[in-house]
Amino acid sequence: MDGDRLLSAPPLGHGKRLLLGPGPSNVSQRVLDAMRAPMLGHLDPEFLKIQDGIQEMLRGVFRSSGPIVLPVSGTGTAGMECAFANLIEPGDRALVAAAGYFGARMCEVATRCGAVVTKVEAPWGEIVPPARVIDAIKVTKPKVVAVVHAETSTGVLQPVEEIAKAAKDAGALVILDCVTSLGGLPVEIDAWGIDFAYSGSQKCLGAPPGLAPIAVSDRALETIKNRKTPVESFYLDVTLLSQYWDGPRGYHHTAPILLDFALYEALRALEEEGLPARFARHVANHELLVAGLTKLGLELASQEGHRLPMLNAIRVPDGVDEAAVRKKLLDRGIEIGAGLGPLKGKIWRVGLMGESSRKENVETFLAAFAEALGR
Amino acid sequence: MDGDRLLSAPPLGHGKRLLLGPGPSNVSQRVLDAMRAPMLGHLDPEFLKIQDGIQEMLRGVFRSSGPIVLPVSGTGTAGMECAFANLIEPGDRALVAAAGYFGARMCEVATRCGAVVTKVEAPWGEIVPPARVIDAIKVTKPKVVAVVHAETSTGVLQPVEEIAKAAKDAGALVILDCVTSLGGLPVEIDAWGIDFAYSGSQKCLGAPPGLAPIAVSDRALETIKNRKTPVESFYLDVTLLSQYWDGPRGYHHTAPILLDFALYEALRALEEEGLPARFARHVANHELLVAGLTKLGLELASQEGHRLPMLNAIRVPDGVDEAAVRKKLLDRGIEIGAGLGPLKGKIWRVGLMGESSRKENVETFLAAFAEALGR
Repeated sequence: MDGDRLLSAPPLGHGKRLLLGPGPSNVSQRVLDAMRAPMLGHLDPEFLKIQDGIQEMLRGVFRSSGPIVLPVSGTGTAGMECAFANLIEPGDRALVAAAGYFGARMCEVATRCGAVVTKVEAPWGEIVPPARVIDAIKVTKPKVVAVVHAETSTGVLQPVEEIAKAAKDAGALVILDCVTSLGGLPVEIDAWGIDFAYSGSQKCLGAPPGLAPIAVSDRALETIKNRKTPVESFYLDVTLLSQYWDGPRGYHHTAPILLDFALYEALRALEEEGLPARFARHVANHELLVAGLTKLGLELASQEGHRLPMLNAIRVPDGVDEAAVRKKLLDRGIEIGAGLGPLKGKIWRVGLMGESSRKENVETFLAAFAEALGR
Repeated sequence: MDGDRLLSAPPLGHGKRLLLGPGPSNVSQRVLDAMRAPMLGHLDPEFLKIQDGIQEMLRGVFRSSGPIVLPVSGTGTAGMECAFANLIEPGDRALVAAAGYFGARMCEVATRCGAVVTKVEAPWGEIVPPARVIDAIKVTKPKVVAVVHAETSTGVLQPVEEIAKAAKDAGALVILDCVTSLGGLPVEIDAWGIDFAYSGSQKCLGAPPGLAPIAVSDRALETIKNRKTPVESFYLDVTLLSQYWDGPRGYHHTAPILLDFALYEALRALEEEGLPARFARHVANHELLVAGLTKLGLELASQEGHRLPMLNAIRVPDGVDEAAVRKKLLDRGIEIGAGLGPLKGKIWRVGLMGESSRKENVETFLAAFAEALGR
């Protein structure tokens, strides 16, 4: 064939990006290099060892001793769906604490799974006050209580412990969305009594997007075993996934081998750094960012005392075209995120997650941001 | 931290594999290199161009002008589930032609989606005779007829055209599993009148596992639009996926960016080679393999005249320990597959798919196989 002239699409030729949006984040060279390890069949004994390693390391990050800890072969939304699809049967009551985009999505996913959903809402940018959730648990007696730990759409860190305790006291199971928090701030699945947690590989874990780590408790597994109806999703059926990852290792689906290699290496890097150091790094770079924003006369839009270190919602000043600012940054290779829903046009979202959470990235961003704002 | 001693898992250190199983297959260097292109955000204008390119090139491979052609962010099984979850509502009748593992899986997935399933069976290793399927269509008047084009568990190529025509005449929608066939032998979605086809990235398309290309017809989309109940799966809802890939490009989930880069480049390589040349390559290497097997006194287990070029089911001779042979090959870095279900212990499955379908691979395999068999 005559060169590339007849092809539908040109070779990939895009430039580098500093990814400071809501995810994906930048991926370190060592993690990218892991994806160049020789491809393996998904039933190869060597791949089984890699699966074992991923599970053991994920347990350490989730701080979970539950019966199932593994990465679902899909993105964070697949993780969310996995939680509801396995725990909910048609007609079950679910209570969702929702003060942002992902809380709202939980309601949508739960409803599609047949749940009767009660939503305890709060304005976007604030926490859902635990007392209101606890009251609603007492009134509605749900089977499942679902909470977003780190609400990526608002930059808010939701208090979880009290809610999880009240849910447990009321006999409810607790679903926790820790897509944005896991690996970036303390997540304590066992200590908090979380029954089904899910995350994403592409945020603070420092791997590429495409995997959704989950952690399932004994209580949740017992509930799943006692279902009256099969889980509608074969792909996300945790009993089958557990047989593929832990048990007889029979064929269920073909794992996305290279992404699993990447997650394996990202988790090794995380272990090397250590959770306390990693959490401290996320806080330090957040504080550096906030100090710089303050100098620029800017402020965060999320409730004080409940701000995420890895996702910063910056209020757009009056009279500033927020999209134009993002465009100027992107032209310089820096991606930040826009607001969603009621916060569209009102905030920028600056992520400092995993590999992207670096002092030099904060400094690069602040300089470019000041210039884009003309400040 | 003191070196690697305290880590849960060692660095990846496995050796190279010649992947001649049922998939994943080997991936070419250019496709692996594509995964080193700089990571992009999934709403980056440059990524939107890559999405456009993937869709256009997939259309060419599927030979589809339907309204939705895109890669689902999951493996082939997610593609299967996507088809049934979108087309089936509780109580709908589905007819499945099943003569192997993936036909049986279709029945399982359809049932979980609420379908009343009629299974037209044939012995593993044979086709399902079209006349029997067509008779069953007339009797059961199903909403959906589902067929596995290339049955990976048996090495059989199922005739599709007549069945699809009869289904269409009866007002039924046709689901086609072309996980193993797409990119390796002719697939004609428009010409055959297929309404929902799904495939996998890791077989004849030559990309790593983790994506499931789908092609949806106007008729299928119309049916989906007229559903009385929402699709239970938010993650696999094709209407939402289409908005993410084609439409307003609003956020739905985070695409597994690097896998999409890989698929993009794999499709470019496929276009460069051209479909006819690629199909001919798969046939030539199959014939080379069969000639070598004949010399070794071995035969294929699949029905003559209906054999797949990319997946060869070799009958295990009496008195030979099939697992020991596979083990000997794997010790030399060559992976082949075992039999599943009723063919367990009775066949080996040798895949010659995509990048793995090379003359030198066939020669390497035949030499090692002869030695392992002591022939």
